[in-house]
Amino acid sequence: MPQIDHTVHVALGERAYDILIGPRLLEEAGAILADRFPGRRFGIVTDETVAKAQLPRLQTALDAAGLSYSAIVLPPGEATKSYSALEQVVEGLLAARLERGDLVIALGGGVIGDLAGFAAAITRRGMDFVQMPTSLLAQVDSSVGGKTGINSPQGKNLVGAFHQPRLVLADLSTLDTLPLRQFAAGYAEVVKYGLIDDPQFFEWLEANRSEIFAGGPARGEAIARCCAHKARVVIEDETETGVRALLNLGHTFGHALEKDTGYSDRLLHGEGVSIGMVLAHGFSTRLGLAPGQDASRVENHLKAAGLPTRLADIPGEIGSTETLMAAVAQDKKVQRGALTFILTRGIGQAFIEKNVDPQVVHGYLEEMRSA
Amino acid sequence: MPQIDHTVHVALGERAYDILIGPRLLEEAGAILADRFPGRRFGIVTDETVAKAQLPRLQTALDAAGLSYSAIVLPPGEATKSYSALEQVVEGLLAARLERGDLVIALGGGVIGDLAGFAAAITRRGMDFVQMPTSLLAQVDSSVGGKTGINSPQGKNLVGAFHQPRLVLADLSTLDTLPLRQFAAGYAEVVKYGLIDDPQFFEWLEANRSEIFAGGPARGEAIARCCAHKARVVIEDETETGVRALLNLGHTFGHALEKDTGYSDRLLHGEGVSIGMVLAHGFSTRLGLAPGQDASRVENHLKAAGLPTRLADIPGEIGSTETLMAAVAQDKKVQRGALTFILTRGIGQAFIEKNVDPQVVHGYLEEMRSA
Ligand SMILES: NC(=O)c1ccc[n+]([C@@H]2O[C@H](COP(=O)([O-])OP(=O)(O)OC[C@H]3O[C@@H](n4cnc5c(N)ncnc54)[C@H](O)[C@@H]3O)[C@@H](O)[C@H]2O)c1
Ligand SMILES: NC(=O)c1ccc[n+]([C@@H]2O[C@H](COP(=O)([O-])OP(=O)(O)OC[C@H]3O[C@@H](n4cnc5c(N)ncnc54)[C@H](O)[C@@H]3O)[C@@H](O)[C@H]2O)c1
Ligand SMILES: [Zn+2]
Ligand SMILES: [Zn+2]
Repeated sequence: MPQIDHTVHVALGERAYDILIGPRLLEEAGAILADRFPGRRFGIVTDETVAKAQLPRLQTALDAAGLSYSAIVLPPGEATKSYSALEQVVEGLLAARLERGDLVIALGGGVIGDLAGFAAAITRRGMDFVQMPTSLLAQVDSSVGGKTGINSPQGKNLVGAFHQPRLVLADLSTLDTLPLRQFAAGYAEVVKYGLIDDPQFFEWLEANRSEIFAGGPARGEAIARCCAHKARVVIEDETETGVRALLNLGHTFGHALEKDTGYSDRLLHGEGVSIGMVLAHGFSTRLGLAPGQDASRVENHLKAAGLPTRLADIPGEIGSTETLMAAVAQDKKVQRGALTFILTRGIGQAFIEKNVDPQVVHGYLEEMRSA
Repeated sequence: MPQIDHTVHVALGERAYDILIGPRLLEEAGAILADRFPGRRFGIVTDETVAKAQLPRLQTALDAAGLSYSAIVLPPGEATKSYSALEQVVEGLLAARLERGDLVIALGGGVIGDLAGFAAAITRRGMDFVQMPTSLLAQVDSSVGGKTGINSPQGKNLVGAFHQPRLVLADLSTLDTLPLRQFAAGYAEVVKYGLIDDPQFFEWLEANRSEIFAGGPARGEAIARCCAHKARVVIEDETETGVRALLNLGHTFGHALEKDTGYSDRLLHGEGVSIGMVLAHGFSTRLGLAPGQDASRVENHLKAAGLPTRLADIPGEIGSTETLMAAVAQDKKVQRGALTFILTRGIGQAFIEKNVDPQVVHGYLEEMRSA
């Protein structure tokens, strides 16, 4: 019997699925897949780094269960969420003669999950897929909820599909090989859940951050709480026509910064979100919506986790305020010309504001550049 | 008031839409769109040939209604259902700053409809779209039902999405500029509906073929009957897990031939379907399932419409039987290794057979090559 510490059910009717969280689920993957998807074949999609660190564990388990699979290995990094990598994955799945009822396995971080999920969505007009997230960010965020896609030269995640996985297997031990900087970046998304609407969780994180980073039981608990939170939101608003947009707290600024730094190692997604969340809190304070001490508390917590919190923390030059504003405007959370932002009334009190004046954002960013 | 001769409602719940058929609907398109989609902007996708023949009519109508739009024009032909054209359309829609609530208009034949519909499906994870089919094939078949996609080097339509349009406007007068060969190719799909399960319709076609080709009232009526037929099937089985596969009558052979001729002018899609339907009837006769005289009646009708009906009608060399069989096997109607074919017990009595022996198909094809 596999050791499963936490199970989160995502109750989406016909598209319902489970998130299983446990210490060594890759070893159990063969048995779990054979049981849940009898007679299917599998196409594993992963990146070179994860292939080295984790793929042999999965292969051994699939072999032991007598499952048939092939593997497609891509270069690591955000640049892999591209049209050309998408084509490569789709063509690889077709070349492996996978059929509509077969399954794509996304083994990796959010890049692989988004890319492989999107490839599954469009290959033969829709194949099933399983998420096996190996980064903290993927385990708490990207592997749950069915948003899949790639980046456009015009902006992040502008091309994609809503396509729910059939199962998520989060193996906690995969995080043992994840670089600390990547772990911290994922932690920004953990903090996000507290900031949106769960002040107790934020407090709990303040008390348990060290244990989460060290790998104690609080780590699994934090991941399960994040998944449960995200599942709740996704059930309520699967295709992001409403409350799901709250999950974008920090992301409009974050995406603009990621774009500006070329989706490169200069700024990881979670690092952009960290700075973005601090900016969102600071901006809300500036608008007189939120108490200034909340903004400081947020910044202090993220800083203690080793995350960048200010524009000046980004190595190298960043673009002009005009460039950043253009990226903000092109971000997909633009509705009929007006800027939509996630603002907040304080820790755990985020809300969607659809009528933000671009001029005011411009002025705030200008000031933050020299802060 | 626009003159609408026929309205077919596609009752798909939240995704329900109307197909409007009339003599000069492009002139009315501005008023219709302004009424049904107030405040939206539009991205027209079309090909060079249709742009020359029909785009000015649409632009004039949109201008008159004060609607804001941009246009993306692609080379005509099946080769446009490619990864690179898809990227071009998506990037064009993004560059035009179209938002998730805006609409993509597919003005053209099935190539443009499939491509633009797929681009709409994945741009910003799903934009709405309107079909304005300008070929007979598109008016009776491809614009209805939400199958969208592109071709893979490994086979036709292997990449795509189910994405229903919000409206279909079939302007009969657009067919006035359609080359006769293209009209005949579309007519193969008209005949298909009779062959599947409507022997009276097939008889009616035998009596009215000349008027349909000449452009009399039977043309609009035939188109409306085809749309109603397709709508019924799509409502019953939106994502083709069952009866919708019947619409693939003649298509497994047809796709293999199209692939073999490089998706070129040597063989149009409808021409491949024409030969494929004759082969499907002949094969069913060979298996002792259907009377031989039905196969002859089908062949005679298609031949009278100017369509190719035999492998020998294809200009130039075609590939070996092995090559054709490989294409048949890679066609997406393969389920768990066994060949799925649409066979028939006679005109109007098609059925899905999931256990066709590849050896028997091979033998039949081999023989037909020298027929
Ligand atoms: N779909 C969603 O809902 C959603 C939500 C949030 C973020 N995202 C997307 O997720 C992406 C970021 O995800 P990410 O941070 O996981 O990026 P990532 O996939 O690039 O992973 C980060 C790095 O860690 C490496 N790595 C991953 N797991 C490892 C392991 N166990 N051991 C060693 N190395 C490992 C990867 O090779 C990569 O170099 C972004 O593209 C973002 O847009 C999507
Ligand atoms: N989505 C579906 O359900 C579905 C169903 C059937 C076929 N299809 C697809 O449809 C495609 C074939 O469609 P098609 O035959 O319309 O091909 P097409 O779009 O290539 O059009 C045929 C030719 O006619 C020209 N044309 C179209 N309308 C014209 C007009 N009014 N005046 C002058 N020229 C005009 C085009 O420029 C093109 O050269 C194939 O790719 C096939 O796979 C899709
Ligand atoms: Zn994020
Ligand atoms: Zn067809």
